[in-house]
Amino acid sequence: MTISIRRFRSDQADFAAQMDALLSWESVSDTGVQQIVTDIVNDVRKRGDMALIEYTNRFDRMNVDSMAQLELSQEQLQTALDGLPDAQRAALTTAAERVRSYHEKQKTDSWQYTEADGTVLGQKVTPMDRVGIYVPGGKAAYPSSVLMNAIPAHVAGVSEIIMVVPTPDGELNQLVLAAAAAAGVSRVFTVGGAQAVAALAYGTATVPQVDKIVGPGNIFVATAKRMVFGVVGIDMIAGPSEILVVCDGDTNPDWIAMDLFSQAEHDEDAQSILVSTDPDFLDAVAASIEKLLPTMERADIIRTSLTERGALIHAADKADALNLINRIAPEHLELSVADPEAWLPEIRHAGAIFMGRYTAEALGDYCAGPNHVLPTSGTARFSSPLGVYDFQKRSSLIQCSADGASELGKVASILARGEHLTAHARSAEYRIKD
Amino acid sequence: MTISIRRFRSDQADFAAQMDALLSWESVSDTGVQQIVTDIVNDVRKRGDMALIEYTNRFDRMNVDSMAQLELSQEQLQTALDGLPDAQRAALTTAAERVRSYHEKQKTDSWQYTEADGTVLGQKVTPMDRVGIYVPGGKAAYPSSVLMNAIPAHVAGVSEIIMVVPTPDGELNQLVLAAAAAAGVSRVFTVGGAQAVAALAYGTATVPQVDKIVGPGNIFVATAKRMVFGVVGIDMIAGPSEILVVCDGDTNPDWIAMDLFSQAEHDEDAQSILVSTDPDFLDAVAASIEKLLPTMERADIIRTSLTERGALIHAADKADALNLINRIAPEHLELSVADPEAWLPEIRHAGAIFMGRYTAEALGDYCAGPNHVLPTSGTARFSSPLGVYDFQKRSSLIQCSADGASELGKVASILARGEHLTAHARSAEYRIKD
Repeated sequence: MTISIRRFRSDQADFAAQMDALLSWESVSDTGVQQIVTDIVNDVRKRGDMALIEYTNRFDRMNVDSMAQLELSQEQLQTALDGLPDAQRAALTTAAERVRSYHEKQKTDSWQYTEADGTVLGQKVTPMDRVGIYVPGGKAAYPSSVLMNAIPAHVAGVSEIIMVVPTPDGELNQLVLAAAAAAGVSRVFTVGGAQAVAALAYGTATVPQVDKIVGPGNIFVATAKRMVFGVVGIDMIAGPSEILVVCDGDTNPDWIAMDLFSQAEHDEDAQSILVSTDPDFLDAVAASIEKLLPTMERADIIRTSLTERGALIHAADKADALNLINRIAPEHLELSVADPEAWLPEIRHAGAIFMGRYTAEALGDYCAGPNHVLPTSGTARFSSPLGVYDFQKRSSLIQCSADGASELGKVASILARGEHLTAHARSAEYRIKD
Repeated sequence: MTISIRRFRSDQADFAAQMDALLSWESVSDTGVQQIVTDIVNDVRKRGDMALIEYTNRFDRMNVDSMAQLELSQEQLQTALDGLPDAQRAALTTAAERVRSYHEKQKTDSWQYTEADGTVLGQKVTPMDRVGIYVPGGKAAYPSSVLMNAIPAHVAGVSEIIMVVPTPDGELNQLVLAAAAAAGVSRVFTVGGAQAVAALAYGTATVPQVDKIVGPGNIFVATAKRMVFGVVGIDMIAGPSEILVVCDGDTNPDWIAMDLFSQAEHDEDAQSILVSTDPDFLDAVAASIEKLLPTMERADIIRTSLTERGALIHAADKADALNLINRIAPEHLELSVADPEAWLPEIRHAGAIFMGRYTAEALGDYCAGPNHVLPTSGTARFSSPLGVYDFQKRSSLIQCSADGASELGKVASILARGEHLTAHARSAEYRIKD
């Protein structure tokens, strides 16, 4: 069975329109979802633990009657880590160390400076007190996501990291628990869905209220996060994962095909796009795809993803490829080219850039060090990988000397009066020297 | 006519509950507003300029038939700046220079490091291409807001700054236009409301699509921003402005009263709270409030704000006051005390900290340098002043050497197989050396 993937040439007349269609993605919570989530959030806010227990019993087919049954102990997490096969525990620990080491570089310090008249200005950086990490249950329960969400918070200095993970039918994923131990998670509650988001946002008698909620989830979780945005901070609402591979034609086409598969296997909506200036190479990769697809465990998902959302694009030249990169603003950009450094200065928008033929995106997903939580669907135009900066905040510092306040007071007074805010003006004027 | 402001003692039995009630604030867009905004946003998205012109004519009582009539030229902005009275132009220019100079310190650089096996990891920092600044029209048209929103974007290196400002009945505010010139705004459209937000988020034939929208607005603007969040970036949805003044009792009570007024005069929902360990000082400030209130231009607004949302709180001691600060996580914190530096290490949450008796909040509102767009309603627990960082984004860089990819490939392979993502595993395994 052959697979049909879209082929474009960047010089075809309708290319811009074709690209718009290819890239368009809209995650819509219909009014039905909205209403369900509103009801759940309000109910958990009002009835707390009782509501949380009821929804968990209902949606996750559990049968518990107290929150104590929905919390895991640190001992359980540590036991899960200790109980892993040696190779797996070593891999998880190595990944955690590398992620921690990279994120340490993202920490920023407070700073201040003193002006000639003695006025001090500055910026104080502090970690959040407590954050919530949402970890999906079931088939998409990824230990790597636990590391990628919790470690930046830990490095930032957040003192309490509360993880929620649904366990449908009570099934625990030992790798996920082990990752929580490796990442420094403080407490784990086995709850999920909109009810878990509500519990974190508003707090219950048992679940402490957090300052920010991060982590991926289904449409109910995403809708709940959008709803509580403002009560707490949230990360971006993620769309389906995508990769843009740009290849000069000299990488083994099997490698490139597998790199495209690694994105496509996530789910049917995932998007894999290959750009090359060499049309023969596009043919070669298409042949590799045909050859390798039947050998893949998730062949059906990959086929649907590549057919529905994939594309092989023939770019005219390097400048053309660069335009495409910036147009797409990809979540993952693989520069499978001879001299990737030479491309960097022209690249304005990308979540993560994987440079050179050896740097498979999968290495970054697990253990290279940078975060795998990245802006999707073109949002790299305005947002960044999850990082330590997402768990720190800043306070401005202003300490005016008597002289400084007198001079600034004159300026403030004029501007405040221009805005008809006379209390502002008079407050400033009190500090003007006679 | 005396004014009645709530008085609390932090040791009273119901203090925690009283504080919860005092601080509770919920900005609710009712379903009516939601529906109106949804319709406007969808209409502008579909019909572009035509819809934008129609809504502007309708809501701002204008009578234009082309977008050209809704755009101001750079010349008009410059003329407005040149035409200001000298003192006002000097004040505006000084403020712009000081804000620019402070924000220059917030710029962050790209970085990278090389590991022993030649693998390079890093973080590339780039400005956004184009951002939108929303400036309210009418009575709340503040030139200082133009500076505070546009200058950080300009310092970040954003190449196009698009400002929208409604001009009800066609009335232009020369100070606002002058501020746009001083701040480096690229283009100004005289449109506002949900229709302006929609135009910026989706673009029209005339209004270019931006990557992020910042700036305050009414409930329609806030609702529209929440709606387009994800299509573009947005800043926080601001609640009413608030100040927490902490005084040791040795500042002139008139000064403190005026500082409280300067917050209260913004609007009836604004919140001014004074905390002192000295109950006699609270009495003295109450007396100053009585004395000064009748002299204020906005006495009615101030009275309502102080009566409905203000409070004078007697704290037991410094530790108690510090607990209150962190409980409130104020937008503005004025430390009107002898030794404000000594308080800093214990303060975890505040938008901006005004230190010492001379540092009136009003100085920071206009010209001290730090931004006056600050997290409100306790959101300083998880968010920061508007800054250069809001207009930059980061891309992770990963360039594995052949040796690095081989070692990382082994780790990734184990973890990917643990997650049943075999395309990830095989993509990594291709890079493992034999």
